[in-house]
Amino acid sequence: MVKEKWRLVRDQLKQDIEAGVFQPGAKLPTEPELAAQFGAGRHSVRRAVSELSKEGTLSVEQGRGTFVETAPLLEYEIGARTRLSKNLGAQGVEMSSALLSAQLVKSSERVAQALGMIPGAPVLESRRITYGNAVPIAFGASYHDPEKFPDFAARRDVLGSTTQAYKTYGIHDYLRAETTLHSRLARPEEAKMLKQHVDSPVVVIRALDETLEGTALSYKEVIWSALRVKFSMSTDRK
Amino acid sequence: MVKEKWRLVRDQLKQDIEAGVFQPGAKLPTEPELAAQFGAGRHSVRRAVSELSKEGTLSVEQGRGTFVETAPLLEYEIGARTRLSKNLGAQGVEMSSALLSAQLVKSSERVAQALGMIPGAPVLESRRITYGNAVPIAFGASYHDPEKFPDFAARRDVLGSTTQAYKTYGIHDYLRAETTLHSRLARPEEAKMLKQHVDSPVVVIRALDETLEGTALSYKEVIWSALRVKFSMSTDRK
Repeated sequence: MVKEKWRLVRDQLKQDIEAGVFQPGAKLPTEPELAAQFGAGRHSVRRAVSELSKEGTLSVEQGRGTFVETAPLLEYEIGARTRLSKNLGAQGVEMSSALLSAQLVKSSERVAQALGMIPGAPVLESRRITYGNAVPIAFGASYHDPEKFPDFAARRDVLGSTTQAYKTYGIHDYLRAETTLHSRLARPEEAKMLKQHVDSPVVVIRALDETLEGTALSYKEVIWSALRVKFSMSTDRK
Repeated sequence: MVKEKWRLVRDQLKQDIEAGVFQPGAKLPTEPELAAQFGAGRHSVRRAVSELSKEGTLSVEQGRGTFVETAPLLEYEIGARTRLSKNLGAQGVEMSSALLSAQLVKSSERVAQALGMIPGAPVLESRRITYGNAVPIAFGASYHDPEKFPDFAARRDVLGSTTQAYKTYGIHDYLRAETTLHSRLARPEEAKMLKQHVDSPVVVIRALDETLEGTALSYKEVIWSALRVKFSMSTDRK
């Protein structure tokens, strides 16, 4: 059965908003402009907009126009026991992730230094993408010393979590030792991976996980969609 | 004594980056291209690039190429005793700041909740802008309960630091209790304040400072230039 026109307009608008074509707080083009843009009748546009405001994606403000609601960003807590699945799963977000690649690469200066290896020495790079409610929220690479964790990527993938994978190596707990974070515009291929507008920001997080004894376990470089995730840190009293 | 070739390449590359020949985030030409460009051997180019990635000017991304890091970012550490001046001052950055305004405003839901006040009750709002080496790096507002800190803005301004101002109220230590952080494109007026391109990101930080006993002291909302500052968190072992 063919989708009614207004549904097509609604779905396209929603995709554009999720992709950051229309960013949170932005004013939507006028009805005639949207109608022209989507090659749809004004009636379909009006219906699509009113449906999207009903579900809270848009807010129609009399006399001012239609605005993109500031989406409730997922909150990712960074702390000693930063665990992605627990973190976002707890917010009722359906988490999933996929292994993009796993291979031995020459360790960069940064990776080697973090893992206490010799720059250029082979290091196991696992590239993964993470989804929240089937929308990409982050992707990146984690690095392990292949001598210590020969088939980490495979175990992580089979067991479905880093924590579980470490257990198979006899590591039952680990800590986030260092995290650095900065934001910049997405590079074209990053925007594509995250299905977001190229002129929208990403947050780059580099992190080192260690054993309780302070031995480096893995170094990560992850690109987060700034449109979909915010970060929080609670300070433990000292 | 004559400089080794790789040092010449490194210095030239760095000059080109500082001069904007290679823009922040831009992909560097390949090794052979750079070698040709600088009339140097690939070994010298490789050495120069690796030295520049060590110091964070470049970032080598396995299989994707070498990219110019987004500016030499100042590092701002978020922790229990987050103190702006200590933080950036320690990196040899000449810190300065200016009071933009100080007034009683009606507290928003968010501010009131953070400070344990009744929404709409008058709260002292101090707006400041902060410079690193005379370049704006952040601006924002901090909120205090006027009953407890009637002339906080004035004391802060005269004494030159929040820590000193609190001392005059008999508070000799305080903790960063909660920090949330997200990134988005700068709004036009924000880009203007920070003297950065309008299509460049900012990092929005909301934070709550408390006494050692856990009494709310102040709530802040600060807009940071994502081009000029990166953030780091070290985890205390638990």
